[in-house]
Amino acid sequence: MRGEYRALRLESDGDLAVLDQRILPFEESWVRIGTARECVEAISNMTVRGAGVIGDVAAFGVYLASRECNGDLASIERSAEAIRRARPTAVNLMWAVDRMVRVARECGATERTGRLKEEAIAICDEDAARSRDIGRHGADLIEKIAESGGKGPVRILTHCNAGWLAIVDDGSALAPVYEAARRGIDLHLWVDETRPRNQGANLTAWELQKSAIPHTVIADNTGGHLMQRGMVDLCITGADRVSRNGDVANKIGTYLKALAAADNGLPFYVALPASTFDFAIDDGVKEIPIEERGEEEVTFIRGVDAEGSIRRVRIVPEGSPALNVGFDVTPSRLVTGLITERGVCRADREAIERMFGDLL
Amino acid sequence: MRGEYRALRLESDGDLAVLDQRILPFEESWVRIGTARECVEAISNMTVRGAGVIGDVAAFGVYLASRECNGDLASIERSAEAIRRARPTAVNLMWAVDRMVRVARECGATERTGRLKEEAIAICDEDAARSRDIGRHGADLIEKIAESGGKGPVRILTHCNAGWLAIVDDGSALAPVYEAARRGIDLHLWVDETRPRNQGANLTAWELQKSAIPHTVIADNTGGHLMQRGMVDLCITGADRVSRNGDVANKIGTYLKALAAADNGLPFYVALPASTFDFAIDDGVKEIPIEERGEEEVTFIRGVDAEGSIRRVRIVPEGSPALNVGFDVTPSRLVTGLITERGVCRADREAIERMFGDLL
Repeated sequence: MRGEYRALRLESDGDLAVLDQRILPFEESWVRIGTARECVEAISNMTVRGAGVIGDVAAFGVYLASRECNGDLASIERSAEAIRRARPTAVNLMWAVDRMVRVARECGATERTGRLKEEAIAICDEDAARSRDIGRHGADLIEKIAESGGKGPVRILTHCNAGWLAIVDDGSALAPVYEAARRGIDLHLWVDETRPRNQGANLTAWELQKSAIPHTVIADNTGGHLMQRGMVDLCITGADRVSRNGDVANKIGTYLKALAAADNGLPFYVALPASTFDFAIDDGVKEIPIEERGEEEVTFIRGVDAEGSIRRVRIVPEGSPALNVGFDVTPSRLVTGLITERGVCRADREAIERMFGDLL
Repeated sequence: MRGEYRALRLESDGDLAVLDQRILPFEESWVRIGTARECVEAISNMTVRGAGVIGDVAAFGVYLASRECNGDLASIERSAEAIRRARPTAVNLMWAVDRMVRVARECGATERTGRLKEEAIAICDEDAARSRDIGRHGADLIEKIAESGGKGPVRILTHCNAGWLAIVDDGSALAPVYEAARRGIDLHLWVDETRPRNQGANLTAWELQKSAIPHTVIADNTGGHLMQRGMVDLCITGADRVSRNGDVANKIGTYLKALAAADNGLPFYVALPASTFDFAIDDGVKEIPIEERGEEEVTFIRGVDAEGSIRRVRIVPEGSPALNVGFDVTPSRLVTGLITERGVCRADREAIERMFGDLL
């Protein structure tokens, strides 16, 4: 495995280790995963999150299942089923487990554990290659803005976390940022806090700090004002699901930023691997189901106190209910383009069908 | 003084008492103010906030100054100057102090303290009357929606706090809500959390709970999605400053909600007393200066822990800077109407000049 930073790594004894994303950025702690059951736990309790990373960890889970039972196929298939159920709506997870089970069926018991380990590594490396290609195409866009603009950095607004904590090696939305930084382009990132789970403030800010990329955390309310006052050059977000007509389901609040970008004539790009398309959904705004999560993610927040201990505090009066909607759908008319591993694609049915026709 | 709830009250011994808004909704504590110096402190350390309430407390501060020095005009004027400096950009505060000083100059030393007390009460009562009129005009709008709509409550989205904690007796944005509730109209409020200072989650939710008005707290990212899915009937916010062309400066994030309302064909109203107009500013988007506040309001948050103690925790990684912009400006083209004590006014220069020509 390559990559300066990864959210998971294979230890020399064959165990998997994952970065505990529940306590970032306050503590940097690696959790060792030695069994399929531990893999299920890490996915379901959100030690790991991010579409790509969940899929990778799931793949390694199938390999660990094989290691536990010396390649007994029936046991592996039972474990695979448990891994599938760890996050029932995660498309990449299903896909990765299916691929691993197919490999398990194709080979004999003695070679099975070794082959599954290789396959899981291959899945990771393929993600990394796609991420690198997304980065290359996106960095070309950033480079054009840098060349056409005046002095000073290219100012990019991003929402949520779609960096290496989500997809190896460079993420989706952050892949163009990392590649542009490697090309020596002067950058400044506006990092949306991303309430209620604060993935921007907790994960994206931490990632950018690790790579010494200049950035500023802002409340989610702030982006419109910054765009209005000419302080943003472009927006790049990731995506959770993109429908055949180019509508983008992504972290709640993405739609509001896309509206502000359109109102101020600014480019709004969405970066994604092609696996994020859901060609079965024709009209995203009407059809993509939106997950509601527990209200305690709104009414409570996690941080560190003056002594450095992680604490959870209630920030809404007791007795006032809260609604926690996980995602929203940005209509394709507000999306300037989709940055994929195959290139930048217009966010409309015709362009998507032309570039991804072989996947339909 | 009338009103079921007020953020300030005159005690029987002539002291002022104010509700400590720094620790709401976690603790309900009244702070007694007996001197002009205590009044300055309460305003500058934000024990009280909200344009109207700040002006009222400042007015009572001038009365308390007079009580301390037995009506010595020079002392009163020195205290008045200190009160003016407590929040230098608060327009209502300046206006209230000027009015109080004028009264002090017009009367003799023996009657001065009594007259100033009466004048401060009158300032409060005038605010209450204006708030009631705003409520009446706004409730008429809500009533029309209730009559034209289907079954179920009228669903109103609001941002920040513009209730009785901000302006006696009913606030600006919440005055129509309280009046509609008194008329028996079925309501449901979507309460924007309003990061970074959380006035929605902390103050508006608490106010609505006190009056048993059904409400749900949402992350600021959520409103666009709710509008898109047909779960909002109208938006009402307050305003900090409205320019002659109808542009609205209000709490950061207001602009994003106005964009979403326009994109979904929903009415977006702004409620304000006429004193909020700044006729000296011709184009709000270009000219209204926007206050930046300390970054610790973004990087830290206040809540209660499991033991019920109020705690401040850091929610951004150490070393990541934050930007804290207090307000944004919503262009008048996104505002359906201005709900004022004189009636509902179109948010454009011509309509504003017609309705408020006598104030120009």
